[in-house]
Amino acid sequence: MTDLLITNARPMGGAAVDILIKDGVITAIGRGLSAENIPVEDGGGRIAIPGLVDAHTHLDKSLLGYPWYVNEVGPRLIDKIDNERKVKREYGLDVHVQSMRQSLQSVGYGTTLIRTHVDIDTDQGLAALEGVTETRRQLAGVVEIEIVAFPQSGLMRRPGTAELLDKAMAMGADLVGGLDPCGMDRDPKAHLDTIFTIAEKYGKGIDIHLHEGGALGTFSMEMTFERIRALSMQGKVAVSHAFCLGDPDWNATQALIDTCAELDVPILTTAPPSREVPSLRRLRSAGVRFGAGIDGFRDTWGPYGNGDMLERAMLLGMKNNLRRDDELLMALDVCTTGGAIAMDRHAHALEVGGRGDVVIVEGESVGEAIVTHQPRKLVVTAGNVVARDGASLRARP
Amino acid sequence: MTDLLITNARPMGGAAVDILIKDGVITAIGRGLSAENIPVEDGGGRIAIPGLVDAHTHLDKSLLGYPWYVNEVGPRLIDKIDNERKVKREYGLDVHVQSMRQSLQSVGYGTTLIRTHVDIDTDQGLAALEGVTETRRQLAGVVEIEIVAFPQSGLMRRPGTAELLDKAMAMGADLVGGLDPCGMDRDPKAHLDTIFTIAEKYGKGIDIHLHEGGALGTFSMEMTFERIRALSMQGKVAVSHAFCLGDPDWNATQALIDTCAELDVPILTTAPPSREVPSLRRLRSAGVRFGAGIDGFRDTWGPYGNGDMLERAMLLGMKNNLRRDDELLMALDVCTTGGAIAMDRHAHALEVGGRGDVVIVEGESVGEAIVTHQPRKLVVTAGNVVARDGASLRARP
Repeated sequence: MTDLLITNARPMGGAAVDILIKDGVITAIGRGLSAENIPVEDGGGRIAIPGLVDAHTHLDKSLLGYPWYVNEVGPRLIDKIDNERKVKREYGLDVHVQSMRQSLQSVGYGTTLIRTHVDIDTDQGLAALEGVTETRRQLAGVVEIEIVAFPQSGLMRRPGTAELLDKAMAMGADLVGGLDPCGMDRDPKAHLDTIFTIAEKYGKGIDIHLHEGGALGTFSMEMTFERIRALSMQGKVAVSHAFCLGDPDWNATQALIDTCAELDVPILTTAPPSREVPSLRRLRSAGVRFGAGIDGFRDTWGPYGNGDMLERAMLLGMKNNLRRDDELLMALDVCTTGGAIAMDRHAHALEVGGRGDVVIVEGESVGEAIVTHQPRKLVVTAGNVVARDGASLRARP
Repeated sequence: MTDLLITNARPMGGAAVDILIKDGVITAIGRGLSAENIPVEDGGGRIAIPGLVDAHTHLDKSLLGYPWYVNEVGPRLIDKIDNERKVKREYGLDVHVQSMRQSLQSVGYGTTLIRTHVDIDTDQGLAALEGVTETRRQLAGVVEIEIVAFPQSGLMRRPGTAELLDKAMAMGADLVGGLDPCGMDRDPKAHLDTIFTIAEKYGKGIDIHLHEGGALGTFSMEMTFERIRALSMQGKVAVSHAFCLGDPDWNATQALIDTCAELDVPILTTAPPSREVPSLRRLRSAGVRFGAGIDGFRDTWGPYGNGDMLERAMLLGMKNNLRRDDELLMALDVCTTGGAIAMDRHAHALEVGGRGDVVIVEGESVGEAIVTHQPRKLVVTAGNVVARDGASLRARP
């Protein structure tokens, strides 16, 4: 079923209309629409928003379904990375099962598009990629999953990883990942040259995790920009986290932001309350594509989160001190259409010609829907009903 | 009813025990307790925590029960203050009703102790104080409410306010409030001298809202310290927000933090993601009393929040980047026993001799209880059952 008529729904909290989806695409929005032999869902006067977009997560890390993980991990990044590999081995974690669990939980919350980073390392090789790829196959038509081959444990510091990344791209990963070229790998030139070479070889894009702050993050971004220019990869390289863009040094950060706009470098944030982060309003006014994600949750890294991108819109709003209703709409856009655009999906919108991804949410206004993030009434992916009343129709394994 | 036996509950996620409350005080914690003619509640093997403590809120501001407030307010502090007075007049807001609504919602979430600031100004005079005082009277035994007479619209800039503050104290307010002596009132000496004079006259404490950052906030804190020393008011003056303690200048902030410890100045935070805030770990290691609050919610100031101090413990944890389970316990302590101690309640703890305020929460561990903040199973205030399954037994007006 890819045809659907949703009646009596209020797009973005506006007046009630009907929404007609044919062959997975929105073909009409208006009053009194009718269509023969097409299933009908009653929106009940509730608000309709586009499918939520989780543009940065880790489907291969969650411990959903396991007992509570008691976190006693040390404070450094490398403590968390080393601990995770150890726990994965001890648990014998089945990445396919875990990624199904997280994906279907996210579907229940109304997410219809996910970009996931998947760990590629010399311990587990390509097993995580295989597991998430199988999940992507099984959930086709339910949630779209884009895969970044991610060298979580380092690239230059763990010989053999580059070859695995290359194989991952041959196996169908969508983007090449990177991670703190200075802070993690201690060899920014080799790290960046390696991932750009692999991306160029496969004609694919890049999404780099950049936690480095201040001048160090600025240096890594500048080295990234140099390679985008040299290889004419404008529009194909995204930076996740980019905490250095939240640095208080306005001149330094504005130069970076202007270059992100010039080279069309999308920025993806998870809006953590504990860090300086790229400013939503500042990036948008500079014309930088900007998306948001859940990041990992209920994993060995930390306890917070549940997969709900409407709650993430709230955190994004709180982080950016957005209080007005028009500002809350911006926060929601980053978690829906804006995030999809950051992922090169330009038809992910509640409009004629947009993909038939619609979420019916509770609330008097979009603001209330974000703030209360009550269970989603209905989730539709490309015209298919995939979740009702907060739960995906397909059961979690 | 002030006697109660709670069976089969796990204090702070530990082993299951029984908790005996007599005359509103915990008299025994252990296995196989029994007591004749005392009501019994089955904890069902769930976690028991102390009553949650909202040490900074505004019971007189919420628009709970009204349609969604569309926020189109300007960016400055004074925009928000002026807008609020205007809206209160337009709505004809009944502060007693609104404070009942918010208090009972908080009781449903397990809050048993509240410190509320109440607006005193030359527009509404003492009406808000009267409304909240009536709520306090009606909810005696359900939730303890401590009242700060708060000059929200300024003190020196609105002549007549000081006299109203004086009357508020005579009417039974518990503490004198203050607000940004420099930024708001443009006359820090007169502002601070006025509130200290009133507090001294009535033998009461002070709780000052201090949003001022950096050097300005430091200056206002130093002027406050000078008066604490001069009047020997050690332990009687708290500072709310204290954003200047989150300033990146370590030396400047450490001097302030050390003085807070020396003069026993409790700090109360709402842990907003958008601001630098006092660090939980830093203040605790310096020995500064530290509590947390919800702040206003669903009001003309902003849309976020619902009264849930367990969710606030999560936000406090996220803000302070607390990931380990032992750190999450610290976050919960700030939202329970630690907050009560910051309010001079030294017997608010889940131990023999502690006040019989117990909340039964869902979760395998305290960490999970915080992260998922599911509806509270049972809320007990001084031995009285006041809420079940997420809702206060007394209906909201």
